[in-house]
This record gives sequence, C-alpha cells and structure tokens, in this order.
Amino acid sequence: MHKEKDKIKIIPLGGINEIGKNLTVIEYKNDIIIIDCGLKFPDEEMLGIDVVIPDITYLKKNVERIKGIFLTHGHEDHIGALPYVLKEINVPVYGTKLTLGIIETKLKEHGLLSSVNLNCVNPKEIIKLENLSVEFIRTSHSIADSVALAIHTPLGVILHTGDFKIDYTPIDGCVADLTRFAELGKRGVLLMLCDSTNVERPGYTMSESTVGETFQEIFSKASGRIIVATFASHIHRIQQIISAAIKYKRKIAVSGRSMENIMEVSAQLGYINAEEDLFIDIDCISKYPNNKIVIITTGSQGEPMSALSRMAASEHKKVNIIHGDMVIISATPIPGNEKLVSKVINQLFKKGAEVIYEALADVHVSGHACQEELKLMHTLVRPKFFIPVHGEYRHLKQHAELAIKLGMYRNHIILANNGDIVEMTRDSIRKNGMVTSGQVFVDGLGVGDVGNIVLRDRKHLSQDGILTVVVTIEKESGSVIAGPDIISRGFVYVRESEDLIEESRKLVKEALRECEKNHVTEWAVIKSNIKDVLRLFLYEKTKRKPMILPIIMEI
Amino acid sequence: MHKEKDKIKIIPLGGINEIGKNLTVIEYKNDIIIIDCGLKFPDEEMLGIDVVIPDITYLKKNVERIKGIFLTHGHEDHIGALPYVLKEINVPVYGTKLTLGIIETKLKEHGLLSSVNLNCVNPKEIIKLENLSVEFIRTSHSIADSVALAIHTPLGVILHTGDFKIDYTPIDGCVADLTRFAELGKRGVLLMLCDSTNVERPGYTMSESTVGETFQEIFSKASGRIIVATFASHIHRIQQIISAAIKYKRKIAVSGRSMENIMEVSAQLGYINAEEDLFIDIDCISKYPNNKIVIITTGSQGEPMSALSRMAASEHKKVNIIHGDMVIISATPIPGNEKLVSKVINQLFKKGAEVIYEALADVHVSGHACQEELKLMHTLVRPKFFIPVHGEYRHLKQHAELAIKLGMYRNHIILANNGDIVEMTRDSIRKNGMVTSGQVFVDGLGVGDVGNIVLRDRKHLSQDGILTVVVTIEKESGSVIAGPDIISRGFVYVRESEDLIEESRKLVKEALRECEKNHVTEWAVIKSNIKDVLRLFLYEKTKRKPMILPIIMEI
Repeated sequence: MHKEKDKIKIIPLGGINEIGKNLTVIEYKNDIIIIDCGLKFPDEEMLGIDVVIPDITYLKKNVERIKGIFLTHGHEDHIGALPYVLKEINVPVYGTKLTLGIIETKLKEHGLLSSVNLNCVNPKEIIKLENLSVEFIRTSHSIADSVALAIHTPLGVILHTGDFKIDYTPIDGCVADLTRFAELGKRGVLLMLCDSTNVERPGYTMSESTVGETFQEIFSKASGRIIVATFASHIHRIQQIISAAIKYKRKIAVSGRSMENIMEVSAQLGYINAEEDLFIDIDCISKYPNNKIVIITTGSQGEPMSALSRMAASEHKKVNIIHGDMVIISATPIPGNEKLVSKVINQLFKKGAEVIYEALADVHVSGHACQEELKLMHTLVRPKFFIPVHGEYRHLKQHAELAIKLGMYRNHIILANNGDIVEMTRDSIRKNGMVTSGQVFVDGLGVGDVGNIVLRDRKHLSQDGILTVVVTIEKESGSVIAGPDIISRGFVYVRESEDLIEESRKLVKEALRECEKNHVTEWAVIKSNIKDVLRLFLYEKTKRKPMILPIIMEI
Repeated sequence: MHKEKDKIKIIPLGGINEIGKNLTVIEYKNDIIIIDCGLKFPDEEMLGIDVVIPDITYLKKNVERIKGIFLTHGHEDHIGALPYVLKEINVPVYGTKLTLGIIETKLKEHGLLSSVNLNCVNPKEIIKLENLSVEFIRTSHSIADSVALAIHTPLGVILHTGDFKIDYTPIDGCVADLTRFAELGKRGVLLMLCDSTNVERPGYTMSESTVGETFQEIFSKASGRIIVATFASHIHRIQQIISAAIKYKRKIAVSGRSMENIMEVSAQLGYINAEEDLFIDIDCISKYPNNKIVIITTGSQGEPMSALSRMAASEHKKVNIIHGDMVIISATPIPGNEKLVSKVINQLFKKGAEVIYEALADVHVSGHACQEELKLMHTLVRPKFFIPVHGEYRHLKQHAELAIKLGMYRNHIILANNGDIVEMTRDSIRKNGMVTSGQVFVDGLGVGDVGNIVLRDRKHLSQDGILTVVVTIEKESGSVIAGPDIISRGFVYVRESEDLIEESRKLVKEALRECEKNHVTEWAVIKSNIKDVLRLFLYEKTKRKPMILPIIMEI
C-alpha cells in the first residue's frame, strides 16, 4: 500500500505526436498539477472548425485533487484552451507576468476574468503545494517571460523545459538560468520532459539579436514607409523594430487587433521600452513623410483576415500599399501556410512594394533549440528518465536517439501517446494504462458538438455538393402528389445541366412508381431506392458522388 | 500593312504568375505554335476539383493557323492538359522520345491515341513550318529528354528555355547543349523566355549524381529492405536507385501504378539501364531475404492514395512495413504537401522503419536552375528582350531584377499576365491587348461545368454544412399542409441539438403564419423570410452560418 503511493504519474493529454494543444498532467498522492493548457489550429480536413482543444474528461473527474495549472509561456499552443478548460474546472492558474497579462485579455473576452484565480510567479520562485512544489526557471523563447518548471517531489525532481532555445544575447538581457539547470542536474533530476520541435536541425538557433542587426541594415537603406509583419506575441522582435525605428527617427503605427492588444499589455507591464510619443495613430500616418513611418502589423502567416493580407489585397481601410513601400515579413511560414504567405508576397510585389522575407534576408530566427542546444540541456540536466515532448512522432523519435547518443539508456526513455499513464518510481518508468484523451472541436459557440460524423458530411459536401430530392406523398394511398423536386448546391452549374437534373427527376419518378406498385411504404426503403438509383446514374454521367438527401413529406 | 505583318505575338495562356499549366502561344503571320500544354493541381480552395487546365477559347478560334504543339518535357505541368486540349483542337504534337512515350500512355487512357498526330524529334533537329522553324536543344531537368526550343523567325530567334538546370555530370552523360546556346547568343537572340522557379535561391543546384552518392552510402549500410519513394517520371533518379541496387546485389520490385507505367515506357525506349532479371514481381518479395530487396514506389509527396501512404497506413496489399525497413523519401514536399509528407514519415517511424528524408540527408536535388545557373544562361544567350516565365509573380519580378543586374534594359523586359498579347518587332516589345484566358476546372468527367458559384457553394457547405427546410403548401389557400421539416447535414450532431432544430421549426412556422396573414404568396419572398429568420437565430445560438435551403412544395 505504501509502495503504491510512492509512484508519480505523468499523463500527457496533448502535445505528444503533434505540435499544439500542450497539456501535461503530473500526479503524486493527493496533488495533481497541470502544465500548460494549449489549443491547436485545425488541420485542413477539420472543415469549418475554429480551434481544437484537449479532451479533459480525466481532469473533470479528478477536479478536487487539481492544485493548479502552471504555464510555461503565453503562446496559444500553451494557453489557448484556458478559457474553455476553466469553464469546466475552475482551478488556480500560475504564470509569469507577461503570460498572465496575455491571458487576462483572453479571459475578459470570454467573460471569465473576475471568476478566475490568477497567480503571478517570478522566475526562481517556488510554489509549495500539499506534496509537490513547483519552481519557475527562466528560459529564452520567441516570447518574453518563458520558463521551465522544476517539480520537486519526494521521489526526485521532474524538469519540464517548456519551449526554449539557448540565447546568449537575448533582447531583455535575461539569459536562461543555465546555472540552475546545472545545479539541479548535479543534485539529480529524476525525469526530464523536453521540447523536441527543432531536433531535426543541426547546430544552434541564432540569437534573436541577429534579427535586430538585419532590421538596422534594412532601415538604414529604406527610403519609403517600412511595414513589418510579425507574430503579435513576439515582444522581443517588436522591441527590435522599435529600436530600429528610434535609431532611424521613424514614428510607429500599429495595425491588427491582436498586435494592438498585446502591445498595450506589454507596454503596461513594462515589456516594451519606448517613449509614448514614438507611437502615432494609424489614422495619422499620412501626416508624416513616408520615410518617417514604420507600421507594425499582424499577418506574417498570410492569414486571410489579417491586416497584412488586407493591405496586400487593397482591402485595408487605413493602409494602401504604394510603390516604394518596404514590407518585411519577419517570420517563417508554419507548415501548411506556405501558399497563403506566398500569395501575400505576390500581391505586395504587384503593388510595387519591396518585399523582404526569409528566403531573401535573415529577418527571422526560430524560438526552439536545435540539436546542439538540446545536447547542452541534456548534458546539464543529466536526467535519469526522459520523455521527449512537443513534437510529432518523427521529432520525439529523433530526440530519443539524440539522448541515447549522449549516453541515456534506451529503456529509460518513454515515447508516450496522449492519454498514456506513465508511471514512475525512483528507479523505474513505464506506461501503465490510459485515460480518456483526444481532441475536442470548437466551432463558433459550440465546444464538442461537431464530431467525426459532421466532419465527414462537411468533407463529402465540399467535394461534390448535395442533391436534395423532395417528394410529397399521400399517407393513405402512398401515391405521389407533389414532386419529385430536385435542388442541387455545389454539384454542377444548374443552367448547364438542366438535362441531367431532368433525367434524374424521371429516374426518381420511376423508382417511386416501382415502390408504389410493390406496396413499399417504409420510408427508409423508399429513400434508399432513390439514393441508389441517383448515385449510379450521376456517377456514370459525371464521375462525381454528391451527397443525396431524399426528403419525403407526408400529408 | 507590311509593317503590321512583321510583328510576332507571344501570348501566354498559362504558366505566368503561377507554377503550373504552362502553355505559351507564338504567332507570326499564318503560323501559330503552342509551347507546352500543362495542367495544374487544384489549390485548397478549389474543393472537389481534380485538375485545372488553361482556357483555350483563343486556340479554338484560331485552330486553322495552329501548326503544332511543341513540348519541352514530359512533366504534368507541361503535358497534362494535352488529352483535354486535343479533344478540342486536333493538331500535330512534337516532342522528344521519352516525352511522347509518356504522352502515349495518357492518350491511350483517354481513347485518343489513334487519332493524334505525334512526331518524335531529336535534340538538334529543326522542324520547318510555313514561316517559322522550331529547333530542339538539349537541356537537363528532373526528367530525361528535356529540351529548350529555339523558334527561328524572320525577325530573329525566340529562345524558350523550358524547365532546366545546368548539370555537368548528368546521369545519361548528355550535358545541356551549352555550345548551341552560346552560338545562338553570338548570332543574336531577339527574345528569351526563361524558367524562374528557383530564382530566389543563390548559388547552383547540385548535380543529380550527388544523390546517387548518397544512395550508395545508404545502401552500403542498410541491413533490411530498402524502400525508395520518388517521382515516377524521374528516370535518372530511378536509374541511380537501380545502379545502387545492382552494386549491393539487391532485387528490385516496383509499386504504384504511375511508377509501373513510366518504368515500362522508359525500359521499352531504352532509358533504363538494367538487366531484365534484376526486377521481381512485388508479390515475390517475401521469397528473398530482406537485405536483398529494394522497392521503388510512388508517394514521395504524401499523396493519400499513393503506394507509400498505403504502406505507412497498413493499407497496402503487398507491402507491410516492418522493423528494420529503410525508407528513403527522395523528394522535397511541394508547397502545400508538407503536412501530408510529415504524416507519412510519422507513420513509418511508428512502424519501426528508419526514414531518411531531405532534412536528414542529401536524397534530393532540384531540377531547376538557381541564380548562378540563370546568370550563365542569360550571359550565353544575351537576348535583346526578356520575358521571365514559369513562376509566381515574386519569381518573375526577381528574375527581371537579376537580368537588369546583368545589364538588360528594364524596358526590354515584360512581366506578362496570362492572356496578355505581347507584341514584338525587331526593336520593340510591348503589351497590346488581351485574349480570353483563365482556368478551366476538371471534376470527374466534367470539363468546365464547375465554376465559381459551385465552388463558393462547396466552400460554404464545407464550413458549416446545410439546413434544408421543406414545407408543403396548398396552392389555393396558401396554407401549410405539411412541414416545415428541417434536415441538417454537416451542421451539428443532430442528437445533441434536437432543441435547436425544434426551435428552428417553430420560428419557420411563425414566419409562414406571418406570410399567410399578410397574403404573401410569392415564393421568393416566403423563402427569403425563412432564410432570414433562421440565419439570425442560428448565428445567435451557434455563431455558425450554415447554408439554408428552403424548399416549397405546392399541391
């Protein structure tokens, strides 16, 4: 019995075999803590879905033991599910200052701010719970105020790196607390969970400050307006744009709601270093010469509704791209966004702008550790056990191989799945069972009301459209008194295919007559006959398979 | 009058501001020639579309002047529209041996082979037409038998490079005919149309033979089966796999219909160099030890129905991925395919295979010229006028800048659009008018019967599904005698939203009652009322906007 209690459970509910919706559960005795609470953006096949969040059935069942949600940083894939999760389980939230600042805006939108218990923690601080304590350790990432978490347990330390890179010259001067990692490593770390995003890339990720040098060079040469698109949350990138603007005596205007929000929060919390009068309203840009203007904007991923996309498509109300504008896209397309970004680049070039993007200059660096940085982390922390996280399977697998090359035992590494219960003692680690896990689709106001059947229908509709067949039948006699009417959407041009629809009507009529003749009155059978006859006919004529929806009205 | 006749028209009908569906028209007096006749694969937003081909209205109108279609090589984006175009305009086709070999398979499938006039041309040969003559000049590309075309006109030479790279050590030993390019350049080239695909990449594209070295190294170490996925048409890549197999005494099996087709054609035409007994049937692979097997397969782009994807998903009937298999993906994901390829890589890793792809080893090189190669071409050919082709606008624009840096006058360069009539004399070039151009969608058997309205409906359906509202009304009285019935697809889980649908029914009923009360009998008005009331209600409740399709049956 005593033995049973001296186990720690690690249960990832998201972030394994995927990049997104990070959420890891750690349990010891009466304490459950949650590390991160992120969302994922939908894949192409998740038609109409807005965002995807982790299934938290397990958390709802164990809510009374949950001591809190501990956040490593303020990116959507680490905090984006919070509003949805907090509606279900209202537990305390712990994070650094900027992380909480970003969350507050989010919770306000969801009408949750007043009911949530937010706790600001500084790096080096330790939060003591019943059996566990959680230490915040500074790291570097593509957002300010990122941390790793060391969970101190009676069995040993669990270190979760969060998302990190090693940056010796970060913009805020706060280098990752390598000394603390070394110290923990020396005393003995039982388990490490480590970011795997860039494990396929050899060498080192460049320092954020190298981007600033590129900005300075571009700014020194630009003779028109400068428009820079980047991630709204990338405060350090934005600070470097600001610094270049100050140096080259340009005013700054901001466009894009998320950019405005985060810049306001960052400025309030002291994360942005600039005089108030540096900023001008986007409405006032025409009052200044072009070479005195910088516009900071969203849309670095080519998102169709973003400010930059609207500028490129001449749909932005305040900014009209003109010959001589210099547009810098300070980001790399996330896989899946390449075509969207390319479309924006083409449009901007066509309008006569100069466009600078990653293929042409060093205007972006990653926020994640490459191989040599991962080796440094492993070497400092020297964990006994290891779970690679934050990656697709290819990344987790290669991260495991990297650890093995550094001397780790293969059987001390767990390649987990979301939902796996990883059970750990002082000297063993293994998978032991699973809990409910999965993805929950958010579509508009609906959370979880769209599932695979609805998505399958949307997919079907998207490929070949729908053909609705309506017929009114007299209940007593079973004879058709109106219809069949056929209405199609998304199938063919109606005008060009009147014959096709007319022939379809005839076939349905025949099928109905046949049913009447054979005294078939079961609706399901009649409908199925209609479907069969149309499916065959339409496939033969068009090689398409529209959804066929027969509707029988009875009077 | 005489002057008017001494103009050449260049009319791109595809391949400009896009990568795909290449088709360029060149006209002089009574001669029209067509260079290439390609298709494009659909963008994400072209839901349900199979392929996209150029609009050839202009060609149909001028069919009697068309002397032939001249093909630069056998890739889909240069030959894929042929079956559709030849059905409309049956004109002679000219191409090199392998190009025609590939086309024959295609025409056979479309039942066109017997009716088409195919003419095999060797590099250095010249085809004489009424006023023009067309010379074939050998190049290197990621398919064998690629050529540039020099069109000799009384006004001067037009050089179309086709897709090319400069490879000093090509697999077939046939280096591009640089001497001929130099010769033409020395005598004077009036206009060059040049491949722009890789203009953003500095330096040189590596030689195809470097990939062979990587194969040799991988083969020397592999202890299990080797499975290589690459483009079916990449004969030289396949030859290198064959050479490595011979060296390491492995038998070869082939999987994937397009790979089987092209390998058969290539072998027949002598483009593949191997003893017959090197190949074994895919059914027989289990008869050999694993370390004596190589499987060459399709699916290097992660295409969901391809052989490699089926192997990765355990859906391939003949090949079951096992621990110890070495899978080489010898290709780069085409923009848009990154996630599909990544999915396959993850699945293969999970099955215990080793997977080698571009991020991990040099198993692919491009088929297109990088900046230094483009500079070489420009320097040899020294054209008076220049039209960059085969690229998005960003590529064409940067190719123009590259030419200007090499000394070309800015006003001697035309950044064209598809459909532009570019008019050229001995000493001038300018745009002068446009012809009909655009994209025609092929969906199943339909060519052009799906247009923007159908696509808009498919998009709408894919996002939030459809709600069909049916009501039967008595003609005389206008009163409702059956319904309203509401059926939804792709909107919400029906079971979980019975209340929503029931409330919708009530609202429609009310709206109908209101219409009856106000003696509204116009169907359009009734339908529009139904739509309005439902749209508002559903958006308020779900923040979704399903398509609403009201149907009124009258008896």
